[in-house]
Amino acid sequence: MNNFDIFGDKQRANNFLDSIKNDKTLFAFVMSYTKTCEIPGITIAGPNSESMKFTPPADAEFLYYGNCKTIEQIPMTPDGKPTPAIITKTALESSSIPHMTINAGSNITPKLPFIESGLPSGNNIEHQNALSDSIVTHAVEYGRILGMTLSSLTDCLLIGESIPGGTTTALAALRAFGYDANVSSSMPNNPRELKEKIVESALKRIDSEHPYSIIGKVGDPMIPFVAGMLSAASSVSKVMLCGGTQMAAVLAFASKIGFNEDNTAIGTTSYVTNDSSANLPKIISEIGDIPLISIDLDLENSKFDGLKAYSEGYGKEGVGAGGTAIASTVKSSINKEKFLQLLENQYQRFFISQ
Amino acid sequence: MNNFDIFGDKQRANNFLDSIKNDKTLFAFVMSYTKTCEIPGITIAGPNSESMKFTPPADAEFLYYGNCKTIEQIPMTPDGKPTPAIITKTALESSSIPHMTINAGSNITPKLPFIESGLPSGNNIEHQNALSDSIVTHAVEYGRILGMTLSSLTDCLLIGESIPGGTTTALAALRAFGYDANVSSSMPNNPRELKEKIVESALKRIDSEHPYSIIGKVGDPMIPFVAGMLSAASSVSKVMLCGGTQMAAVLAFASKIGFNEDNTAIGTTSYVTNDSSANLPKIISEIGDIPLISIDLDLENSKFDGLKAYSEGYGKEGVGAGGTAIASTVKSSINKEKFLQLLENQYQRFFISQ
Repeated sequence: MNNFDIFGDKQRANNFLDSIKNDKTLFAFVMSYTKTCEIPGITIAGPNSESMKFTPPADAEFLYYGNCKTIEQIPMTPDGKPTPAIITKTALESSSIPHMTINAGSNITPKLPFIESGLPSGNNIEHQNALSDSIVTHAVEYGRILGMTLSSLTDCLLIGESIPGGTTTALAALRAFGYDANVSSSMPNNPRELKEKIVESALKRIDSEHPYSIIGKVGDPMIPFVAGMLSAASSVSKVMLCGGTQMAAVLAFASKIGFNEDNTAIGTTSYVTNDSSANLPKIISEIGDIPLISIDLDLENSKFDGLKAYSEGYGKEGVGAGGTAIASTVKSSINKEKFLQLLENQYQRFFISQ
Repeated sequence: MNNFDIFGDKQRANNFLDSIKNDKTLFAFVMSYTKTCEIPGITIAGPNSESMKFTPPADAEFLYYGNCKTIEQIPMTPDGKPTPAIITKTALESSSIPHMTINAGSNITPKLPFIESGLPSGNNIEHQNALSDSIVTHAVEYGRILGMTLSSLTDCLLIGESIPGGTTTALAALRAFGYDANVSSSMPNNPRELKEKIVESALKRIDSEHPYSIIGKVGDPMIPFVAGMLSAASSVSKVMLCGGTQMAAVLAFASKIGFNEDNTAIGTTSYVTNDSSANLPKIISEIGDIPLISIDLDLENSKFDGLKAYSEGYGKEGVGAGGTAIASTVKSSINKEKFLQLLENQYQRFFISQ
């Protein structure tokens, strides 16, 4: 497993990896939406701002069917770089990890059976509170119910997300909870100035120290919902939050509502942990004693430009790509050359032959 | 386990019970709706015909919270006899069986996280086809997807339903597939004449031998959806259909689309198998070599009239009551006196103290 970097307690990280290797694992894919993504220039998680709302359900469909039903093509950047769901799908398939789709705020629902939470989308935090206090309560409560149910069905719950614009709301949430965060982005030239302006505008509305009020003002539906899942599930089973700065925001909020650190880890890609514009390991270490594991997928060695782009800073992470790739590598003992080959097969099948 | 009656192959039934005892078990509760239930006099699964549509989500809420959120009181007959969900809740709690709620055609959704299938309600089969052919295809396909997912998370999948008016659509479906069925009802004086009239009217519309066409003309959304679940799940894990004649209709349709008999059983209450107006064991034996297990809950010895009513022919079955009670008895080695006591505690808590 020489393609992992571990930040935080090495022993706890290795115990966590042992549990993934030997025990039952389930991937929960959480779709969500914040209207913050409609601000021009904020994200490239979709070919244009109108199509962004189709990205989460299309990611869900791609994970299940290997193609999309809600839209014709699989989600990609304006210049054709594919969704990280392609990494996730390779990971889940190569290690037979089952998965379930959960809707926590996407108005567009996928064409497959999914778990509905009844949550609305988040508002654009530049101009409005993201969620009312009662919606935050709903998100945490339903997240807890689902976390309790899923943890009774598995030994290790992996949680990933798809929420266009979610790095901006995560940045705002981390700052609001007092962390000196610089946030990663799906774009190589992270539009930092624009994000700072939006975050500054959102933070001005904070008028209470209550964590529910804070997350309602500057967050998105995914953060309190996944925090609720973590809070309940970690009392019973292992939970790996699969993602970068968005999962740091989940962890920051979860630390206010309570969760079991001993059963929790974060899994992501090295493109996030090596990102000099972000500072994920430092933020995680400030939140708690949570191991952060990152995987080097070696995509710079891919023969396809669309995959190489990840190593150049596009996409970096999303749809639980890093965490599921870690789980897959551990469970199936696939080395990184083999994983890259499987990923390239997947890429070829869906992007070259179309 | 002297409170079980076994119909069909004893050895297979006992193997099935052993598997429930030793392996992981999950209860899937399927909510559905057919407008057939709005025909006056057809069912008492709700205090009046307007409130009937709230029964499935209210059952789901009761199972989870122990009270209802969509309506104020728990579902009951016009004269106050409680939903069989009270038996199911006692069973699940006393043996720590996890459960998930699935919506397969209820327009009213429960106030908790649930799995959404995107299916519409069924039309009133007296006057209209229940479902279009494409909806039947959707139901089977989504049922299969969900069955595959859930069977990867458990060793034994228990499936129950709540669909007011469902015994009438089940009767029509069984007759349409050539079984000489007399169908049970939630009423002691089974309104047989009314049902016969509705079924006769529905059967007249059948103009094809294709099972999808038949179920679309005279069935309801629950039947093809649960048949799809059974079809996929039984290829991997054990599946117990928890119910009476409605599950016989599921089995009749499933035998057309294919399922693994070796992994399948039906579990119900003795109030269904002893019902002289129905003939469940005979129908099941004609469909296939499927063990039918029924449990005598001894409710005639209850100190509460509301529970005694089951033994007098009210309710009889629903919400997977019989099958989950069987699973609970097997898993926790609770005898029938103890089960009755737990059930009475549940009853007292929710019906006396309100």
